[in-house]
Amino acid sequence: MQLNIPDSLQKRVLIAGGGFAGLKLATKLANSNFQVVLIDKNNFHQFQPLFYQVATAGLEPSAISFPLRKIFQNSKNVFIRVAEITGMNSTNKEVITTLGTINYDILILALGVDTNFFGMKHIARYAIPMKSVAEALSLRNKILQNFEDALVEPDAEKIKALLNIVVVGGGPTGVEVSGTLAEMKKFILPKDYPEIDFSQMKIYMVEAGSRILAGMTEKSASHAEGYLQKLGVNVLCDAHVSDYDGEMVSIKNNIKIPAKTLVWAAGVSGNQTQGLNPELYTGSNRIRVNSFNQVEGFDDIYAIGDNAYMAEGKYANGHPQMAQPAIQQAKLLALNLKRQVKNESMKPYHYFNKGSMATIGRNLAVVELPFMRFYGFLAWLTWMFVHLMAIVGVKNRLLVFINWFWNYVTYDQSLRLILKPSARKDV
Amino acid sequence: MQLNIPDSLQKRVLIAGGGFAGLKLATKLANSNFQVVLIDKNNFHQFQPLFYQVATAGLEPSAISFPLRKIFQNSKNVFIRVAEITGMNSTNKEVITTLGTINYDILILALGVDTNFFGMKHIARYAIPMKSVAEALSLRNKILQNFEDALVEPDAEKIKALLNIVVVGGGPTGVEVSGTLAEMKKFILPKDYPEIDFSQMKIYMVEAGSRILAGMTEKSASHAEGYLQKLGVNVLCDAHVSDYDGEMVSIKNNIKIPAKTLVWAAGVSGNQTQGLNPELYTGSNRIRVNSFNQVEGFDDIYAIGDNAYMAEGKYANGHPQMAQPAIQQAKLLALNLKRQVKNESMKPYHYFNKGSMATIGRNLAVVELPFMRFYGFLAWLTWMFVHLMAIVGVKNRLLVFINWFWNYVTYDQSLRLILKPSARKDV
Repeated sequence: MQLNIPDSLQKRVLIAGGGFAGLKLATKLANSNFQVVLIDKNNFHQFQPLFYQVATAGLEPSAISFPLRKIFQNSKNVFIRVAEITGMNSTNKEVITTLGTINYDILILALGVDTNFFGMKHIARYAIPMKSVAEALSLRNKILQNFEDALVEPDAEKIKALLNIVVVGGGPTGVEVSGTLAEMKKFILPKDYPEIDFSQMKIYMVEAGSRILAGMTEKSASHAEGYLQKLGVNVLCDAHVSDYDGEMVSIKNNIKIPAKTLVWAAGVSGNQTQGLNPELYTGSNRIRVNSFNQVEGFDDIYAIGDNAYMAEGKYANGHPQMAQPAIQQAKLLALNLKRQVKNESMKPYHYFNKGSMATIGRNLAVVELPFMRFYGFLAWLTWMFVHLMAIVGVKNRLLVFINWFWNYVTYDQSLRLILKPSARKDV
Repeated sequence: MQLNIPDSLQKRVLIAGGGFAGLKLATKLANSNFQVVLIDKNNFHQFQPLFYQVATAGLEPSAISFPLRKIFQNSKNVFIRVAEITGMNSTNKEVITTLGTINYDILILALGVDTNFFGMKHIARYAIPMKSVAEALSLRNKILQNFEDALVEPDAEKIKALLNIVVVGGGPTGVEVSGTLAEMKKFILPKDYPEIDFSQMKIYMVEAGSRILAGMTEKSASHAEGYLQKLGVNVLCDAHVSDYDGEMVSIKNNIKIPAKTLVWAAGVSGNQTQGLNPELYTGSNRIRVNSFNQVEGFDDIYAIGDNAYMAEGKYANGHPQMAQPAIQQAKLLALNLKRQVKNESMKPYHYFNKGSMATIGRNLAVVELPFMRFYGFLAWLTWMFVHLMAIVGVKNRLLVFINWFWNYVTYDQSLRLILKPSARKDV
């Protein structure tokens, strides 16, 4: 089976992955003199920074997902195929997908990362990760179903396990999800479940390092930790989760927490491609690239975004795995590919750190810009504005804004539906 | 296991089902002197008349679903349990559910209907029904995935089967879904899939009776059929679907249509409860009730809504299975239950036909009110207004309105996401 992409005199740029990096590169090459083939396992782009709001019933998946075909409706040189990349062969210059094999002139690996359970099989089996909208929806369903189960559970210990939630990982995702859950516990859930004693429900945030938000300054981290504590989150640092059986979380030094819900936001690992020399990968499966994002030893294969590992100046251990480096690398690569055609030399990539931020709850956020830091209400407004503007599509932006405004005014996220997939098998 | 409903001096009214009938009855009994237990397999109410818009990427499930708990946040006498009814025992006055057994003083069966495949197993296996949001989402996913598959399919005959859609059943759902699909074919899909030749795509609407919209007048039906033909739908009446293997639809008299998508909106059958005398059911599994909606032979068991069968005057074969009779019966029953307590006599139900309507497409609808009929743009506006006002929740109404307005102005439904459930098993 073949992917049925028409032959063309244009050079074919094959982009594997439609995340921030792949999508930005494709839009920059739309209506250019390249033939662009964009392959993703989904037919939509996902806005990862807001997965946690899907998980906590604040937003619908569709509000933060955007159909790829719609973006390229007016770009005749862009071809989209919904398929998974299963392997590659750099000698034949071809990529193997679930829809068949396809040749490339230039290959871009923008495959992103997936959850890293660090080899702990029990945790991989029972914990809920947060790296796709489907996983975020699973978390939402699980939490709501646990409350339904708690209503009819006679055993007091089991009720505690149903109510408790442990979030592992003190990065922005962990901070945001635990803060939002704490607000739900405070404002929303007691209204929905007056039969439940919410003083029994505990939310834990467990971080292996000595403090949360390792990517930000100590001052910001301490503000964020204060906000979390104010909301009632139990923050445990220097705490290594060692095991989980679906009922009891084991932390080193003999701490045990009964919890039916364990959210795993503690690490990521690059999505690998069969056929690429394993030595090109770092320990967390990022692909070593030079300053032009070229994969070491190739001039026709590039890696950009979270799955790329470029040592640059003070980022000797690679750039942070966030949207900004992905978008910046994609923009520069589009320029460099066009320069190559004109026999101009390529420009090396330098990360421009626009800053970082995390929101903890209503009016509570921390923002670090290159020359200033601020906290609280203004930071929270900034966080909302930046994220709103980054979402693809005017309608999505409008829907997210209405949802946020509504939730703010009513103290209510109303998307508390346990949506089970159809019982019928799709045939 | 028990449902853990507190004992009470109040009489317990157990409502099985949170559709139009069950929900309306529960809201009318909220903050009354009854203890109300509302049991549904979902934690939300679904607005069935707009399932077809979920199926055709116009609305999200959450826009037409509303969490039951939110509705009853201020009603201390209403207890909600998410469970399936598996049986009942009228001697012990108890109902058996997936969460355990529960006693009732008064039982209300408001279990609605499900798709009736009339015993045709192949069709039940391969066709897509439209009686839940999950099924509507399955249809959306299936159609979009078929287009993706058509892009890479080399066999011309197989491409036709991937593009064609057969809708069986000429009632409002069948009319609405085939009209909307025809508009998608015209306005949206060619922009998303410029590589596909849409002259090859055919939409069929197949009705076993001699005309569509049997519940409306001939004049309205003929208007609707004209609209469908104008949109390019092939309307086949007197056509019985006899078999379907997932690839080829067989219609009696040797008509064969290649189609990978068969939408089944051709009939419904009441949801039965084990333990109720089978002789109480009609052929289509509706429960025979008297004019107070009491199940024949019982004074403490009632059936209301689609699953009730009351012969009344010109409705000698039961009332139409639509929202209006369900809502009216629920309102009257709430009144009658309160009258019983005061030792007042119950009032018999008489259906007040407020009219019926169906929308076929942009500016195209048919409306029949008791004393007038009208068609086209004004009918379409009326249809929208009535449905918008009937949706539970101000925010849902706002979201539906924005979606409709957006789709009208842009000729675009943007929810074209193929959302697969998480690959991980929920544990």
